Amino acid sequence: MRVVVNAATSVDGKLSSRRREQIAISGPEDFDRVDALRADSDAVMVGVGTVLADDPHLTLDDPDRQAARRERGDPPQPARVVADSRARTPADARILDDAARTYVLVAETAPAERVEALAASGARIVTAGEDRVDLPTALGTLEREGVEQVMVEGGGELIFSLFEASLADELRLFVGSTLIGGRDAPTLADGEGFVEAFPDLDLTNVERVDDGVLLEYAVD
Amino acid sequence: MRVVVNAATSVDGKLSSRRREQIAISGPEDFDRVDALRADSDAVMVGVGTVLADDPHLTLDDPDRQAARRERGDPPQPARVVADSRARTPADARILDDAARTYVLVAETAPAERVEALAASGARIVTAGEDRVDLPTALGTLEREGVEQVMVEGGGELIFSLFEASLADELRLFVGSTLIGGRDAPTLADGEGFVEAFPDLDLTNVERVDDGVLLEYAVD
Repeated sequence: MRVVVNAATSVDGKLSSRRREQIAISGPEDFDRVDALRADSDAVMVGVGTVLADDPHLTLDDPDRQAARRERGDPPQPARVVADSRARTPADARILDDAARTYVLVAETAPAERVEALAASGARIVTAGEDRVDLPTALGTLEREGVEQVMVEGGGELIFSLFEASLADELRLFVGSTLIGGRDAPTLADGEGFVEAFPDLDLTNVERVDDGVLLEYAVD
Repeated sequence: MRVVVNAATSVDGKLSSRRREQIAISGPEDFDRVDALRADSDAVMVGVGTVLADDPHLTLDDPDRQAARRERGDPPQPARVVADSRARTPADARILDDAARTYVLVAETAPAERVEALAASGARIVTAGEDRVDLPTALGTLEREGVEQVMVEGGGELIFSLFEASLADELRLFVGSTLIGGRDAPTLADGEGFVEAFPDLDLTNVERVDDGVLLEYAVD
């Protein structure tokens, strides 16, 4: 499986302000690039923090891209995936509507009634790991369901966990020309952080997009 | 006065790990660029957190650049400046040696015995602001001492404060090809963070340097 991490940050690496409100970091050219990447992916993944903060839909905007997927025998929308150890995704989250298949990855100790409510809302439940989702196992399950490329759209906790588990293959980062600041604002990679060995990235492409810059990396 | 903020971060905006240990983010080409920028500046400024974490010397490495400064009538080394509201700079900090003039910016409520110890160590004390250094006033004092360009080398608290006070004119950011992670790791701009109006930067140059990329911005 190929894991492509995609995000937009300010120059200081922030995904949003300390209030966790969405901020328009990128512009129309980058939105279109993100939509194209979604269209090329079998699944689009976020962490539950992003669901709780933004209630994203994670579907393709462009009808032509949906038609192109149909033509090649794929569902018109990529599947949606939430990494949600404790099953905190609200049952009325937009990500659970019937626009696309949705997987919720939970840990074994997630409250059973929460998990049942999500299943009743149409989510396909993948259980892996005791207290926290075991990402290699959960992604292995998705791969057996036919997910060959997953695009990860945040947040910083999930992105760090993917790098920590050596699961990220690519990073595509739009750096917007603004500064957000804040020692408590969420960044591209939060979690505990690395302290000794740091992932080695290989800068494969640099491109001006909108009023910022797109940086593309392969992960060694 | 022209305020040029210069820093090297990981792709996720971190200046170092949560342990605040220095990490080699850039390489020889970027070190040389930083040395050249120091040589072009009248003063090099850091926050006290950087002094306590790294004990930097902040002097020019290249003897030719020192000679060039002498030839144009400048001291061989730019002055050094520490923003240090509570006068916490250790009296034996490398920044206080006699390689260059050093200003310590303190607030009025800084402990008198600490301020006296710093003055006895050769620091020129600039007092501005009640509990925290008032940066516009303090930089105004430096300007009257002949500092026309100050280069700011971090950390994230000082950089945020400069943007908050609308004092930053330029940002030169080397983004290294590594990921540090950590919700508690210091970032390019920490402090409280902006929540509504965000500084508008203008991306003026994008250039591959070492194994990363140099991004240069003018601040509107």
